[in-house]
Amino acid sequence: MIPLQRFPVEPWHVREIGLDLNLLAQSESVFALSNGHIGVRGTLEEGDPSGLPGTYLNSFYEQRPLPYAEAGYGYPESGQSVVNVTNGKLIRLLVDDETFDMRYGQILHHERILDLRAGLLRRVVEWESPSGRIIRVRSTRLVSFTQRAILAAHYEVEAVNGATRVVLQSELVANEDMPRQSADPRVSAILERPLDPQLHSNSGNRSMLIHQTRISGLRMAAAVDHLVVGPSNVSAHSYIEEDWARTTAGTKLEPGETLGITKYVAYGWSSQRSLPALRDQVDAALSAVLHTGWHDLLAEQREYLDEYWDGADVEVGGDPAVQQAVRFGMYHVLQAGARAEQRALPAKGLTGTGYDGHAFWDTEMYVLPVLTATAPRAAADALRWRHSTIELATERARTLRLKGAAFPWRTIRGQECSAYWPAGTAAFHVNADIAVAAARYVQWTGDDEFERQCGLALLVETARLWMSLGYHGNDGRFHIDGITGPDEYSAIVDDNIYTNLMAAENLRQATESAKRWPNEADALDVEVDELNRWMAAADTMAMPYDHELGVHQQYRGSTEHEVWDFKASAVEDDYPLLLHSPYFDLYRKQVVKQADLVLAMHWRGNEFTLAEKARAFEYYEALTVRDSSLSACSQAILAAEVGQLQLAHDYLIEAATMDLQDLEHNTRDGVHVASLAGSWLALVCGFGGMRDYGGVLSFAPQLAPTMTRLSWSVRWRGCKIRVQVSPTDVTYSVDDGPDATVEIRHSGQLIALTTGVPVTRSLVKVEPLTPRPAQPAGRAPRSIAPQ
Amino acid sequence: MIPLQRFPVEPWHVREIGLDLNLLAQSESVFALSNGHIGVRGTLEEGDPSGLPGTYLNSFYEQRPLPYAEAGYGYPESGQSVVNVTNGKLIRLLVDDETFDMRYGQILHHERILDLRAGLLRRVVEWESPSGRIIRVRSTRLVSFTQRAILAAHYEVEAVNGATRVVLQSELVANEDMPRQSADPRVSAILERPLDPQLHSNSGNRSMLIHQTRISGLRMAAAVDHLVVGPSNVSAHSYIEEDWARTTAGTKLEPGETLGITKYVAYGWSSQRSLPALRDQVDAALSAVLHTGWHDLLAEQREYLDEYWDGADVEVGGDPAVQQAVRFGMYHVLQAGARAEQRALPAKGLTGTGYDGHAFWDTEMYVLPVLTATAPRAAADALRWRHSTIELATERARTLRLKGAAFPWRTIRGQECSAYWPAGTAAFHVNADIAVAAARYVQWTGDDEFERQCGLALLVETARLWMSLGYHGNDGRFHIDGITGPDEYSAIVDDNIYTNLMAAENLRQATESAKRWPNEADALDVEVDELNRWMAAADTMAMPYDHELGVHQQYRGSTEHEVWDFKASAVEDDYPLLLHSPYFDLYRKQVVKQADLVLAMHWRGNEFTLAEKARAFEYYEALTVRDSSLSACSQAILAAEVGQLQLAHDYLIEAATMDLQDLEHNTRDGVHVASLAGSWLALVCGFGGMRDYGGVLSFAPQLAPTMTRLSWSVRWRGCKIRVQVSPTDVTYSVDDGPDATVEIRHSGQLIALTTGVPVTRSLVKVEPLTPRPAQPAGRAPRSIAPQ
Repeated sequence: MIPLQRFPVEPWHVREIGLDLNLLAQSESVFALSNGHIGVRGTLEEGDPSGLPGTYLNSFYEQRPLPYAEAGYGYPESGQSVVNVTNGKLIRLLVDDETFDMRYGQILHHERILDLRAGLLRRVVEWESPSGRIIRVRSTRLVSFTQRAILAAHYEVEAVNGATRVVLQSELVANEDMPRQSADPRVSAILERPLDPQLHSNSGNRSMLIHQTRISGLRMAAAVDHLVVGPSNVSAHSYIEEDWARTTAGTKLEPGETLGITKYVAYGWSSQRSLPALRDQVDAALSAVLHTGWHDLLAEQREYLDEYWDGADVEVGGDPAVQQAVRFGMYHVLQAGARAEQRALPAKGLTGTGYDGHAFWDTEMYVLPVLTATAPRAAADALRWRHSTIELATERARTLRLKGAAFPWRTIRGQECSAYWPAGTAAFHVNADIAVAAARYVQWTGDDEFERQCGLALLVETARLWMSLGYHGNDGRFHIDGITGPDEYSAIVDDNIYTNLMAAENLRQATESAKRWPNEADALDVEVDELNRWMAAADTMAMPYDHELGVHQQYRGSTEHEVWDFKASAVEDDYPLLLHSPYFDLYRKQVVKQADLVLAMHWRGNEFTLAEKARAFEYYEALTVRDSSLSACSQAILAAEVGQLQLAHDYLIEAATMDLQDLEHNTRDGVHVASLAGSWLALVCGFGGMRDYGGVLSFAPQLAPTMTRLSWSVRWRGCKIRVQVSPTDVTYSVDDGPDATVEIRHSGQLIALTTGVPVTRSLVKVEPLTPRPAQPAGRAPRSIAPQ
Repeated sequence: MIPLQRFPVEPWHVREIGLDLNLLAQSESVFALSNGHIGVRGTLEEGDPSGLPGTYLNSFYEQRPLPYAEAGYGYPESGQSVVNVTNGKLIRLLVDDETFDMRYGQILHHERILDLRAGLLRRVVEWESPSGRIIRVRSTRLVSFTQRAILAAHYEVEAVNGATRVVLQSELVANEDMPRQSADPRVSAILERPLDPQLHSNSGNRSMLIHQTRISGLRMAAAVDHLVVGPSNVSAHSYIEEDWARTTAGTKLEPGETLGITKYVAYGWSSQRSLPALRDQVDAALSAVLHTGWHDLLAEQREYLDEYWDGADVEVGGDPAVQQAVRFGMYHVLQAGARAEQRALPAKGLTGTGYDGHAFWDTEMYVLPVLTATAPRAAADALRWRHSTIELATERARTLRLKGAAFPWRTIRGQECSAYWPAGTAAFHVNADIAVAAARYVQWTGDDEFERQCGLALLVETARLWMSLGYHGNDGRFHIDGITGPDEYSAIVDDNIYTNLMAAENLRQATESAKRWPNEADALDVEVDELNRWMAAADTMAMPYDHELGVHQQYRGSTEHEVWDFKASAVEDDYPLLLHSPYFDLYRKQVVKQADLVLAMHWRGNEFTLAEKARAFEYYEALTVRDSSLSACSQAILAAEVGQLQLAHDYLIEAATMDLQDLEHNTRDGVHVASLAGSWLALVCGFGGMRDYGGVLSFAPQLAPTMTRLSWSVRWRGCKIRVQVSPTDVTYSVDDGPDATVEIRHSGQLIALTTGVPVTRSLVKVEPLTPRPAQPAGRAPRSIAPQ
């Protein structure tokens, strides 16, 4: 875990003072830069020491066999792993005759700042070499949001205490050596030397390396150019080999003099384009950015972010730690989605190799709701990516002997990569998650063209999947048996309420969409009778309930099972349980890894009364161990809804500081994008009480005891709706986009909101129906906020 | 499938006339010889062509890594695979200048006979070489029941149509080339060149090869000696290399003259003994058998079998195909168990590499009931083997976070080798199967010493397992959730009735045994309170019942699930379903691979009324597809009990001819020992109605329409009880062992049976309560008997 004081609380910065070599990998994830297309971990320029070196290109992967000691029907034969591509960050420094290395000499000052408004990673070092020479290094790094192919860095060394001979070596390195990963089954396998060299060329200080993966056959190019600024006597030259290019600049600096290098790196990859086409593409990108220049590149970056924050920022008064954390979270959400452009949004974004670089359902259920409200174009792109894989999904459904489309549980390119069948052939809720995300996007944006081209097909094919998965039982209800819901401590269950309600919504939205687009529906062979069957299934969907306990069941019969021995687990420090217990035992007992029924009560909350929510929240709180990073934010949302505001705040802090405090002990493998997005959800859907049931935006704001103010915006059908909450009042306004009247609800009450005319209403407090619910022993929220 | 006419119906022989090269592998399994210690497949002496060459030593295995694309807690890291050891069967023949090979020249006559009374495999060939030379070959092969280390063969070639130069080459070959196996996940991986040479030596015509496996480090020795008999001018010499020894004898034969060779092969293996010790052991075994000589070795074999058949034979009047098949079955049961001597009895015996050579629960539930009644010493040995692995089982229980002992789902040596967690960490019924088999053995034999030394510990540690697996629910019943029962088309279910009732019996027997052996129980830390808890759990064991349908549920809620679309599966020829459907779909629907509730109704039938049995049998017949070879015999038993005698007979034929007709299409990998034993169970427990509930032997004989007579014996507490059934009467007698009075039941009525005083009673017919139950489309019993 990262010590609480490591990143001091500041509103727009994540600042690290000093350098803890034991936490290098974690800080590489926290300080990772990405635009959704390129991702570079926050490794020190000099490369050594490092935690987990990493440079990634979205969807650039290698294929690998999936071994099975006992194979079964429908198991995927090969998987996909994100590949560490050519490293363009590297700048080594020689000071007199000694290598600049944080493990030797003395660090007089070390500071790194992730600037959330400027979109830059800055570093300042004052270092005394083992022989007593003092230098100052300042660097700035960015991955451009405006020039998608570009990573750029400025690096400057200054002599401090006497004439100093300095040599800068700027490098491109392919097939870097990688450290071994842990034995945790969730931590992905590492691929060694994945890149076959295809071309290396150099001209002046511009170099290029082109490589290809061996099995997936993807080709990538990295090109670099340099501007060197220093005293007149600077010499610079370049050298290149197959896996490696170096530009060297050296000089002698008098105290106060500096040697600087500006480095532009352009990346590109393709599964189809020829080598010359790819070569020219990255060369052009380099020429473009050189034409822009460093100063304007930074200005573009700031401008892009200003626009983002204008719609995406949540202001939290009286709660500086949450304020910083939610901004850090929203910055990483943007980094994951900004320029992915019809590629997957992986669970770790492009910040590490965790989960092999795969995308899961949390993209649709945690990240896209946030992007839909704050950066809708990125949301559309992510959904268009899903749509682009629909043929793979229909093929997969056929393999599983089902109708419609079955999207993968985990993937990079679209093929199912899960080697664990209770997930890969049973966690079907991912399909409803995708479909409902598409419907939500259409509802929020009114993007008809998207609906016509992509949304309808996503909804129709997933609706067909549900019809082939479920059946009408003798009780007249529609049942979906033998599937796996969100909670990974149960599997292969019947009538998981989350899945059932999401499937029902999927079926309803599919029906409505098909009615809106009759010609397109016709082209998909949708028949009227089919729509009737969809609605009949949706309307009779089973929702198992325990009448004795008076609580909904996460799945049919769930509440009849033995309750996990939480006391024993606390005593034996058995968390996360999946590393200390066999699946069969987790699955058969009442123990919940992550919000499941509680998640259903957030997204399909109109299917439950407030009393039912309060009762269920209390019941499942006692069973939920949060061994998943997806849980805290959802628990925060329900806690707020049922009036448990302090508990909601505790969960909010856990979700928001997941990576800043390394709460899951695996931030080294990349940040938890879903949990970071979840901190926005916890504030906006939790404390803000925002819902969109039935296509009407509703709010029911409340503040945590410490909060003095909460305000945020969402983009809704071209407008920007702004909500400002004080301890007593809520003010709504529409202050962007076309003149419009938007109907919203404030704590149940309809308000017709007109552009430019703010409306203020009293805040309506929710009285909790239960005492503060208790968690399993030792599993209360990790709510200690940084100071 | 093997054509129906392939093995003509004869009472004591399995005879093959002609040679179908496409069925070589199947016939190698059918004609495999074994004594439980050595197993040799029925490969032609000349080695080529062959199906699957194979020579096995019980529990001689190689360890291999078990790969997982996504590993989980408690998954075993390495597996065990049976190894094809040094082949001692090989005798090649040169006829003039042409190799004796069934693929060339012309087969004038080819006949193989497995003689079930003599314990021999005989072969007669008349062959015309491509150049027109005719010879006659006669061979006899045996694996000795009386000299455990010995494989012996006599081989004789006779010139028929002119002076013929013949050369015999008798070989030992280690690390034979093996063919690739199918993609069926159930077919085990083949290990290539598993044996490292350690010693090869030769003296005269005696040769020896010693090898060791690489990872498991097991050492084996094979030694051979020869007697050559022929015209005076026979020359013989031997040659040896690391993996290979050859003795050559050649001569010129005039028509009518023969050249003969008698070959003795001795095998031994050890994980501990030194190389010289092993060398001397097999050399001594060779010397012993040479001293015995061929004639006496055959006589010993016959004598051993006479005694076996005296107690084990079932005579079936009017049903010659069943008569032959049940004897074939009982012969293979003996071969599997006779001299295993505290080693595992694998599912395929030592007849092939199917299931990697692993032993499963079917040993205890299908094979041991038969051996207990017919060859009790072999049953005791098998149970002593389980007891010898109890430390591994307690260790495994600890790994699974359970108390007591958790025996492996599949293993050779005792370590869990299942890489499929729903079996390897959930099919706990194997533990009750073992415990109840031990209790049954004690009940039948009165072997107190076994109970004291082994039985008690097996019962106590498995009882403890059940207590840690189950719990008392709010309904006051004892529940066992989240486990896998016998039916492999459901998994991870709650309250599987078979498991629950077997666990209850386990708990009761453990309690009684602990009371019988208080000091020994004390040494196992058994406390009085513990016994009370065991009995409380046993007495309140949950038995889920569907009140609407009026039928027991295979597991809690099973009857609520969707019924499998059997019609579609029949149309698409989707059997076995597991090769065409994903697990999740099989598991969530009503489709039964193999008898499960029906199996419970046989072994724990006193917990059900006859009406309940008839109802359940009818209900589950419609769901049971018999994709497992373990099913038909159990269905036969229940069918007979509920008066469905023709159906029982149909299932009997399927069970009994499983391998003679290759009904499962995998006899090539070895015979189905459990199903073969099951043919005895189908006759004796099915038509004979034999049960042992509560320690009283009971019978309720009935005959199938075609049967004129049925008689069998069982060994019971040192006596031999004989039952002879005619269409109208049943005669019981005690005609062996000490003078005794045995209390038995005849169709419910108590009889005190005294040695030497037969009792005859009228046969009591059971009227069926339902029409003949229907099976899923296309899954009626494969009941066409051979002619």
